[in-house]
Amino acid sequence: MSLTVTVLGCHSATPRVNAHPTSQYLEINNRHFLIDCGEGTQRQMRKYKVGFSKINHIFISHLHGDHFFGLIGLISTFGILNREKELHIYGPKGIKEVTTLQLKLSKSWTKYHIIFHELTSNESELIFEDDNVSVYTIPLDHRVYTNGYLFKEKEKPRKLHIGKIEEHKEIDTCDFNNIKAGKDFVLSNGAIIPNSQLTLDPPKPKSYAFCSDTAYKPDIVPIINNVDLLYHEATFLKNREDLCERTKHATAEQAASIANQANVGKLIIGHYSSRYSNIEDFKKEAQTIFKNVELAEAGKKHTANSTPTFVLS
Amino acid sequence: MSLTVTVLGCHSATPRVNAHPTSQYLEINNRHFLIDCGEGTQRQMRKYKVGFSKINHIFISHLHGDHFFGLIGLISTFGILNREKELHIYGPKGIKEVTTLQLKLSKSWTKYHIIFHELTSNESELIFEDDNVSVYTIPLDHRVYTNGYLFKEKEKPRKLHIGKIEEHKEIDTCDFNNIKAGKDFVLSNGAIIPNSQLTLDPPKPKSYAFCSDTAYKPDIVPIINNVDLLYHEATFLKNREDLCERTKHATAEQAASIANQANVGKLIIGHYSSRYSNIEDFKKEAQTIFKNVELAEAGKKHTANSTPTFVLS
Repeated sequence: MSLTVTVLGCHSATPRVNAHPTSQYLEINNRHFLIDCGEGTQRQMRKYKVGFSKINHIFISHLHGDHFFGLIGLISTFGILNREKELHIYGPKGIKEVTTLQLKLSKSWTKYHIIFHELTSNESELIFEDDNVSVYTIPLDHRVYTNGYLFKEKEKPRKLHIGKIEEHKEIDTCDFNNIKAGKDFVLSNGAIIPNSQLTLDPPKPKSYAFCSDTAYKPDIVPIINNVDLLYHEATFLKNREDLCERTKHATAEQAASIANQANVGKLIIGHYSSRYSNIEDFKKEAQTIFKNVELAEAGKKHTANSTPTFVLS
Repeated sequence: MSLTVTVLGCHSATPRVNAHPTSQYLEINNRHFLIDCGEGTQRQMRKYKVGFSKINHIFISHLHGDHFFGLIGLISTFGILNREKELHIYGPKGIKEVTTLQLKLSKSWTKYHIIFHELTSNESELIFEDDNVSVYTIPLDHRVYTNGYLFKEKEKPRKLHIGKIEEHKEIDTCDFNNIKAGKDFVLSNGAIIPNSQLTLDPPKPKSYAFCSDTAYKPDIVPIINNVDLLYHEATFLKNREDLCERTKHATAEQAASIANQANVGKLIIGHYSSRYSNIEDFKKEAQTIFKNVELAEAGKKHTANSTPTFVLS
């Protein structure tokens, strides 16, 4: 099991030379997702070695430019690079119309199939599921319709306790699937070996919640409870809570409060306003409420259990 | 009079870490224009110190992504930065619909006024004019409706020949405007001093033609005849003329042939395909036909009369 978030951009509002708008690359249990796609995301993907062909699912939180204006360029580049695999795009209603209009105007219809999953609900809903991962929306509170996304690894089968199994000559490899599925083993003399003696607990499934952009919204706590990693926007410090109210963003303290209430393993903050020159101030403010805080930075890889590293660009 | 082209991006197709799609900043006779706006243009403008507030007119050649996908982000950033001045956008029909749809979906209507000038003609036409500059379209031949743009300085009034004027005590400063306008001066004794004795020719008006993207199209020669600077795309070398035909682009040799036929002062080439690792090969090929060739590169400033310099970023 693995869970790694690579930050491609984490600043708010407008792209600058060294400040890129929101985008993240998530690797979870052998699945590869792109979350948000501000202008310049495809360049950041190249810079930080995120393989285009790995991305089959893109999740867009909302249609503000700093989360979305890079999408059409990425779709177009996939086409130029002769992509054939279908691409699933999840985002607010309207994302299909605007994407197809741009493809139409440029006469650049893609040869690969794009499947849009337009979201309109204000309740958390399951929007993607396969053998490895489930993805749920996290309804947020922003100036336009916005969802965060909760990514959860599926439960793995129980692990075989090989040492114990070898003590029983009657157990054959063809029995392993039943044992992994939790069944007891019945010996030829009728005796039963309980499954708990033959297996070990699988690793605990990991989970990641992405919450940007949003005002402070404690309603989301039950949805994101106990996640291993939480990304929560922190656009301002608490000395400008007035701006949060006006623009529907959160302070570092509010992000930390959500992390604390939801008992998450680790909090990543980002979406910093350009008015702040030292992002360490966000960490300091958050840590007054919740200790395990990391600052999002372009090229940084965050995992559940280790300190972040930087991708060499 | 001045004419400077600052290249912000000059590569074709997809943005890469060190290869930016087409955009140019043109300073001509105290006017400031942006030409094309591929993804990441606003970041390139910041990098190369192009003041956002100087831009009141943006000219888009066509709606392919590498010339256009950065426009909505720039418009949006102007809004975030509280722009108040109106902005004129020239480009193919459809540019208004797609821009306004994106502003609508993000509920980010700009407070400043955007005036769209949608182009549909296949004949060269005057689309902008003020006291200093005229701008004409240059109909090109590409896979979608495309125009290049011809920027021409207006004729300046004749320059006073101060040394000669001082020889005639009767000439007062209040006569200067008439003399600059070309009028002869009549002395009180009825004698006429011809204007040619009192004035010097003004500097020759400069002109710049921007031609991207296009197949080889000698029809444009009469439109761009004798321009001081010509930018003409050169996507491929002549060994891949087959790709030019298929994609409606030009080779370096074809760009140089246009420059030669139009007797231009200097040729700038760009829009290099990513298949070529050494852009010097484009210059070599072009110079077999036309000597005065410069290679477009991001951050490079081209002028009519001097060697290019680089903007410090």
